[in-house]
Amino acid sequence: MVQGLTSDSQVLAARKRADREGKLSAHANWRMAVSQDILDVSQYPLMKLTGEERNIVKCDATTLVDLIRKRVHTAHEVLTAFVKAAVVAQDVTNCLTEIFIEEGFERARELDQYLEETGKVVGPLHGLPVSIKDHIKIKGLDTSTGYIGWAYKTVADSDAVVVDILRKAGAVLFVKTQNPQTLLSLETDNNVFGRALNPFNRNLTPGGSSGGESALIACHGSPLGVGTDIGGSVRIPAAHCGLYGLKGSVARLPHAGLLGSHDGMEAIIGCVGPLARSARDLELFCRVMLDAKPWLVEPPLLEMPWKRDVARGEDLPEKLSIAILFDDGVVAPHPPIAEALKRYKNALTAAGHDIIEWHPLDHQYGWDLIVRRSHVIVIPTYSALCQVKLYLLDGGAEYHETILGAGETEVPQTQWLLNHANGRAPYTPAEMFRLNAERELFRLKALAHWNATQQRTASGRPVDAILCPVASTLAPPHNTTTWWGYSSQWNILDLPGVAFPVGKFKASQNATYPPFAPPRNDVEKFIQGQWDPATYDNAPISLQLVGRRHNEERLLAILNVLEREVPCGVAMNGTMKV
Amino acid sequence: MVQGLTSDSQVLAARKRADREGKLSAHANWRMAVSQDILDVSQYPLMKLTGEERNIVKCDATTLVDLIRKRVHTAHEVLTAFVKAAVVAQDVTNCLTEIFIEEGFERARELDQYLEETGKVVGPLHGLPVSIKDHIKIKGLDTSTGYIGWAYKTVADSDAVVVDILRKAGAVLFVKTQNPQTLLSLETDNNVFGRALNPFNRNLTPGGSSGGESALIACHGSPLGVGTDIGGSVRIPAAHCGLYGLKGSVARLPHAGLLGSHDGMEAIIGCVGPLARSARDLELFCRVMLDAKPWLVEPPLLEMPWKRDVARGEDLPEKLSIAILFDDGVVAPHPPIAEALKRYKNALTAAGHDIIEWHPLDHQYGWDLIVRRSHVIVIPTYSALCQVKLYLLDGGAEYHETILGAGETEVPQTQWLLNHANGRAPYTPAEMFRLNAERELFRLKALAHWNATQQRTASGRPVDAILCPVASTLAPPHNTTTWWGYSSQWNILDLPGVAFPVGKFKASQNATYPPFAPPRNDVEKFIQGQWDPATYDNAPISLQLVGRRHNEERLLAILNVLEREVPCGVAMNGTMKV
Repeated sequence: MVQGLTSDSQVLAARKRADREGKLSAHANWRMAVSQDILDVSQYPLMKLTGEERNIVKCDATTLVDLIRKRVHTAHEVLTAFVKAAVVAQDVTNCLTEIFIEEGFERARELDQYLEETGKVVGPLHGLPVSIKDHIKIKGLDTSTGYIGWAYKTVADSDAVVVDILRKAGAVLFVKTQNPQTLLSLETDNNVFGRALNPFNRNLTPGGSSGGESALIACHGSPLGVGTDIGGSVRIPAAHCGLYGLKGSVARLPHAGLLGSHDGMEAIIGCVGPLARSARDLELFCRVMLDAKPWLVEPPLLEMPWKRDVARGEDLPEKLSIAILFDDGVVAPHPPIAEALKRYKNALTAAGHDIIEWHPLDHQYGWDLIVRRSHVIVIPTYSALCQVKLYLLDGGAEYHETILGAGETEVPQTQWLLNHANGRAPYTPAEMFRLNAERELFRLKALAHWNATQQRTASGRPVDAILCPVASTLAPPHNTTTWWGYSSQWNILDLPGVAFPVGKFKASQNATYPPFAPPRNDVEKFIQGQWDPATYDNAPISLQLVGRRHNEERLLAILNVLEREVPCGVAMNGTMKV
Repeated sequence: MVQGLTSDSQVLAARKRADREGKLSAHANWRMAVSQDILDVSQYPLMKLTGEERNIVKCDATTLVDLIRKRVHTAHEVLTAFVKAAVVAQDVTNCLTEIFIEEGFERARELDQYLEETGKVVGPLHGLPVSIKDHIKIKGLDTSTGYIGWAYKTVADSDAVVVDILRKAGAVLFVKTQNPQTLLSLETDNNVFGRALNPFNRNLTPGGSSGGESALIACHGSPLGVGTDIGGSVRIPAAHCGLYGLKGSVARLPHAGLLGSHDGMEAIIGCVGPLARSARDLELFCRVMLDAKPWLVEPPLLEMPWKRDVARGEDLPEKLSIAILFDDGVVAPHPPIAEALKRYKNALTAAGHDIIEWHPLDHQYGWDLIVRRSHVIVIPTYSALCQVKLYLLDGGAEYHETILGAGETEVPQTQWLLNHANGRAPYTPAEMFRLNAERELFRLKALAHWNATQQRTASGRPVDAILCPVASTLAPPHNTTTWWGYSSQWNILDLPGVAFPVGKFKASQNATYPPFAPPRNDVEKFIQGQWDPATYDNAPISLQLVGRRHNEERLLAILNVLEREVPCGVAMNGTMKV
C-alpha cells in the first residue's frame, strides 16, 4: 500500500499487480522466493534452467537467430529458457508489467512449424524473444506506462511501428517491462507496479526509464529489449546493468506508437533504442528496423537506409582519433569510472590510436536548457526554486494532472524533477521559440567545437568519436539520481550515443582512490558525498561512445574497434570478454 | 509616400530607396524609363544589350558555367550582361533591394584572373551571377526583410550558409531582391521598397514571397536566384513568372543565416530553394549545396549527400506512374491551368505512362492547420473572425509588434493574413503540442494515402509523383491572392515540390472555356469571380510536380521525363521548348 493514494487508485494498482501475479502463477514451478537481504540476485534466474538452457540464455541475439535458423534449437526451446529466467527476474527485481507468455509460446510453435515445413525463416529475427518497454504499444495490451490513471484505459488498438517490424522479422514477444512514472527519470519507480531493482545489487537502481528492460536482460530473462531515450533512458539502464544500449539520432529509428505525456512536444525528441548483450546485437536491431523502410509508414523518419558496409567498419581509418571526456566540468565521475577512462586511454594509445582530451562544452548550460537547476541544493530537500525549460514547457501541468488527477502521488524522482518547475506558468509561444533558438545555437556551438578538434588530432581530422562516462556514478542507490549531464547532453545535441560495459566494481578489492577535488557546486558535493565503495559493490562499470549525427553505423563500427583493442571488459553474461 | 506611416518610418524608407537609387545611378546609361501604361515589360531589359549579351542572358546557369570554364565568355562579360538587364528589371518591376554591383565586378575580375593564371575554376559555379532574396544574410549588407523597423539595424555580420557555399563554389553575388513584409505572403509588397511587379503583365503580382527573384530572373537580370518557401514562396513566384522553382524537404538544403520573424518556431519549417530558367539548374544548385556537406556546419541539416545517379534518372522505371490532381476540392483551378493538366495527362498517357487521378486529401484541413479560415468571406473585407494556427501561434503578436512598433502600417496581404488571428490569445504549450500532433496525424494520413495508390496503378507501385497546379490561378492582380492550398499543402506534409513552366496565356486567343461548377465555398466563389481572360493576358502557365519526402533527386529526374515527353511548354527565355 502506497501512502497518499486514494482508495480508488490503490484498487486499480492492486488489480494491475494481481493480474500480473495471475499470469506468473501459471508458471509456479519456475518461480523463486529470494530473501530481501540478498543483494546480488543476478545468478538466481539461472538456477532453474537446465545446462542447455543456461547456454541458450547466455547467447546474444545474433547467435540465437543463427542457432534457430540452423535448427540447433527451436524457437520454443529458446523461449522456454528465457521465460524461466524472466519469471525469476520478475520475482527478484520487479521488472515486468504485462505478461503474455502463452501468446509467445504459440508464436514460437508457429515459427518452428514454418521453418520445419518450408526450410525458411520468416525474417532475420526468426524465433528471437524480445521484450518491450511498457509505454511502447502492443496491440491488445494495456499501456499503463507507470500511471495508475492509465491502467485499463490504454489498451492499444495497434502495434507501435517498432513492434510491427519486430513481429514481421520473426521476433517472439512475451513480456513488457517497467518504466517510471512520467518516464522522465533515470530510475524506475511507479505506483502501479512499484520499483524495479538492480539484479547485481538490489540496493541500487537498475537505471531508467528503461529500467525494467535492463533488469530483465541482465537477469537473462530476454536477449534483446526495446527502450526509449530522451535524456539517457536507454543508455543509463544499460550502463547500470552492464549491457549495451544505443540511442540513435532523432528520427532514424521508428518512434511511432508510443504512449506518453506531452504528445506533440517537439522541443526535444526521444528515440527508441535497443538494449542488448553485445554490440553486434545493436547493429542487428538497427539493420532490421531500417531494412523495413519504416519511413514509408512513419512520416517523421529520415529516409536513411542502414549502411551495412559502414557498420562493418569498411570506411574507418586504420587509426582512429578519439576524444576522451574525463570530466564534464560540473560533476566529476566517481573513481571506478575515472579509472576505466584512463584504462581505455592507455590501451587505445598503446594500440596506436590518436587520443586527445575532449573539452567539455557547457554541460551545465545543456542541463539548464532542459531543466534549469537552482544554485541551492536540490537533493534531498526537493525545495529549490527553479525554472523548467524544454522538458517542462507547460510548467509540469500535464504531469501533475495525470498523476494527481488520478488520485495517485508523485514518486520521489518525479517530485525531484517536477519541483524544478515549481509552479512556473506555462511558456508563451515567443518564449518557446526563444528556447528552440537557444537550443539551436547550442547545437551550432557544439558542431563547431567538434570540427575544431581537427586542430588537435594527429590525423588532422576532427575526432571520430567521443569516449565519456554514461553517468557520474555507477548505479546509484534508489532515489538519488541527480545529474544527467553525461547522457542528456547528447539528446540536446542530437548525437548518437552507445553505452557499453567495461567491468564490474568490487568493493572487496579495497583499492585506494585519489581524494576528490573540492566540489564545484552543490550537485557535485552531493555526488562526492555518495561515494563509498561499499555502496556500489558489484555494480557494473560502463562507458559511453558518442558519434556524429546520423552516423549510427560508424559509431557501432568504432565501438567494435574499441572492444577489439581493449580486451579488458567483462561481459555481463559473467564471462570475461576477449 | 505611404498612408499611415509615421514620419520617422517614412524617412527611413525614403533613405533605403535613395540608397538603392544611388547605386543604380552609377549605371545611368543602362537605365530605362518605361511608361506605366505598358504592361508587358519583359523584353525591355534586353534592349540595351548587345547581340552577344542577349545570347548570354538567355543561357541557363548550367550553360553559363560551361561557357566561362571553356573561356568562351569571361565572368566579367557575363556579369555585365546580367547587370545591364538587372538595372532595367529594377526600373520596370521594382525587384531589387540591396545593390552591390561593384563588388560583383571585382569578384568577376578576380575569378577571370584566377582562371587565366591557373587554368582552373574555383568551383562548379565559377563566374555565375546569382541573386539572393533579401532576408538571406550577406555579410556587410542590410537585411531589412521588408520591415522598416529593421532598416539599417540588420547589417549582417556573416553570410548565410547558402551564400557561403555559393561564394566558395565561385558564384558572383551582385544584388539582393524584394520580399514582402512578414514574408508570409504569396505576393511581394512592403513599405520599405514598395511593390514588385510581374514583368509579363504589371497589373499582376510576380508572386511571393520570393517575388523579387522571380521578376528579376524573368527579366534576364539573373540566371539563378535563391528564395525561401514555407507555403509556396519559391514555387508561386517561379510559377507566376514562368520559371523553375524547387522547394525541397525540410533540412535538406542549407537554411541557416536567414533573418525573419518567429526565429525558433518549428511547428512548420521553411526551406531555401532555387529559382532558375531550367530544370537542370535546380539540380546544379542542389548538387553544389550538398557536395559542400553543409551538415558539417549547420546542425539541423540531414546528412544526405546528393545522389547524382538518381538525379540522372538511373533508377527510374521506364514507364512512370503519375497521379494528377485536377481539383483540390476547395478551389478548382482557372481554365488555363485545368487545360494544361489535361494536356499533360493526354501526352503522358500517349507516351505509355500510367496516369491516375490524385484524390485530394483535405486541402481545407491542411489550410486550417496553418491558418484557420472562417466560413464568412475573408476577401476583400478583411473582417472575418478566424483562428490562427501553425503560422501564427502567438496570435500574430510578433508581426504586429515589428510592424506597428516601428511606426509602419500593414500592407494589404499582411492585413489579410494577420486578420485570421484577430486578437486571439497566444497558444499554450499544451495547445501547441496538440497542433503538432494534429499535423503529424495529417502527415500519417497523407503517407498512407500515397502508399494506397498502388492499388490503382498499372505498375502496382505507389505513384512516383503527383502532378498538380501550383495555384488555382495564374499570377493574380495585386492584393488578391487568397488560396494557398495547392502549394502550402506540400509544406505541411513536408514533400518536395517543383514548379515548372508549361506555356503562356494569351487572352487574344479567344478560346472558349467550360462554365464553372457552382462554387463550393466563398473562397472559390471569389476566385471564380476573378476569372476574366483579359486580366491574365500574357501570364505564364505553370504546373507543379510533387515527390516523396527526401527524394529531391528522383523528383527532378521525373521532371526531366515529363519535359521530354511533353514538348509543348514554352521556356520563358522566349524560345519554344522542344
